[in-house]
Amino acid sequence: MLISLSLEKLVQAFSRFPGIGKKTAQRLAWFLVSQDKKFALELADTIRATVESFKLCGHCNMLSETDPCHFCDSPERNDEVLCIIENSPDVQIIENMNDFRGRYFVLGHLLSPLDGYGPEQIHCQMLLERIDEIKPQEVILALKPSAEGEATIHYISEILSGSGIKLTRLSTGLPFGGDLEYSSTVTLANAWKRRYSV
Amino acid sequence: MLISLSLEKLVQAFSRFPGIGKKTAQRLAWFLVSQDKKFALELADTIRATVESFKLCGHCNMLSETDPCHFCDSPERNDEVLCIIENSPDVQIIENMNDFRGRYFVLGHLLSPLDGYGPEQIHCQMLLERIDEIKPQEVILALKPSAEGEATIHYISEILSGSGIKLTRLSTGLPFGGDLEYSSTVTLANAWKRRYSV
Repeated sequence: MLISLSLEKLVQAFSRFPGIGKKTAQRLAWFLVSQDKKFALELADTIRATVESFKLCGHCNMLSETDPCHFCDSPERNDEVLCIIENSPDVQIIENMNDFRGRYFVLGHLLSPLDGYGPEQIHCQMLLERIDEIKPQEVILALKPSAEGEATIHYISEILSGSGIKLTRLSTGLPFGGDLEYSSTVTLANAWKRRYSV
Repeated sequence: MLISLSLEKLVQAFSRFPGIGKKTAQRLAWFLVSQDKKFALELADTIRATVESFKLCGHCNMLSETDPCHFCDSPERNDEVLCIIENSPDVQIIENMNDFRGRYFVLGHLLSPLDGYGPEQIHCQMLLERIDEIKPQEVILALKPSAEGEATIHYISEILSGSGIKLTRLSTGLPFGGDLEYSSTVTLANAWKRRYSV
């Protein structure tokens, strides 16, 4: 039974979040209307402020409040290692390791020509410009082990061959088909430690 | 590492939701900033509109957009049975049964004098007024089986004794699909005590 149209709209919206089913979405929606209004209104403001302030960094293609982003701008990060990730959220789990102090580059998608994601869609030109800019000694391909991931790693290693840059990838300790985002920090830290030349 | 202050505020807010841990909260926050802004801004608007429109029904104490609420107002619901629930969200799971067409009353809390929840806090006067108004033949105490639930059921049955109203409560026993092995002793003892002929 439809109890309230606006509550139902809230449930529909929460259901679109990854890993949130109908029942959890109902729980979240009811939680919001059951709490003091201040919390929910602050959440609404935070959502609005956050998404309106986020844009893509012109140097590394990462979602960020600033352009250049914190990672491209910080003098505390070094240019020696560039880490290539598929999507911006992947940066969170890599930073959680507290191990990497280099720069990032976000492809935005993996290579998948049949789905319309060619070299242009994964921002290869921008990547080459970034590499030319910071001249890293090592490029880490922190991409998920899947058909598209392998194709992307292969393609990038081709275009960087002869550049003299050491190209590494995360060890395949990660389960095939699994997303970086859902990996435990220990799993990722092991894969990070065991990265090898392609 | 703190990647963005406003993203972190979003993670903090999502972490306050029931059943949402730090990692899920991070995933939800990143999902919001990764999607097209339209979705997130609409969510913010829906949250604001929903919580601002929700108030307590003056008849049954349920969170609702209208006062009287849909359940108190609808001519399709009958006055013969009144169902007492602890909190407004409980109405969702009862309505999902598609079996109950009577009225509701929301206590807002279970009786717990040591925590400061006495008869006044669980809206007993309002309950008596509602019962006087609709004159139900049966009152169903759909409260959770716990120390506070038992105390509340006991208290309400005391104040309604002599009213001639049939007072019922939800059966206690094994949950459907639950294993004996994983049931608590209290659950099993209840199921044992209330065993019925097949």
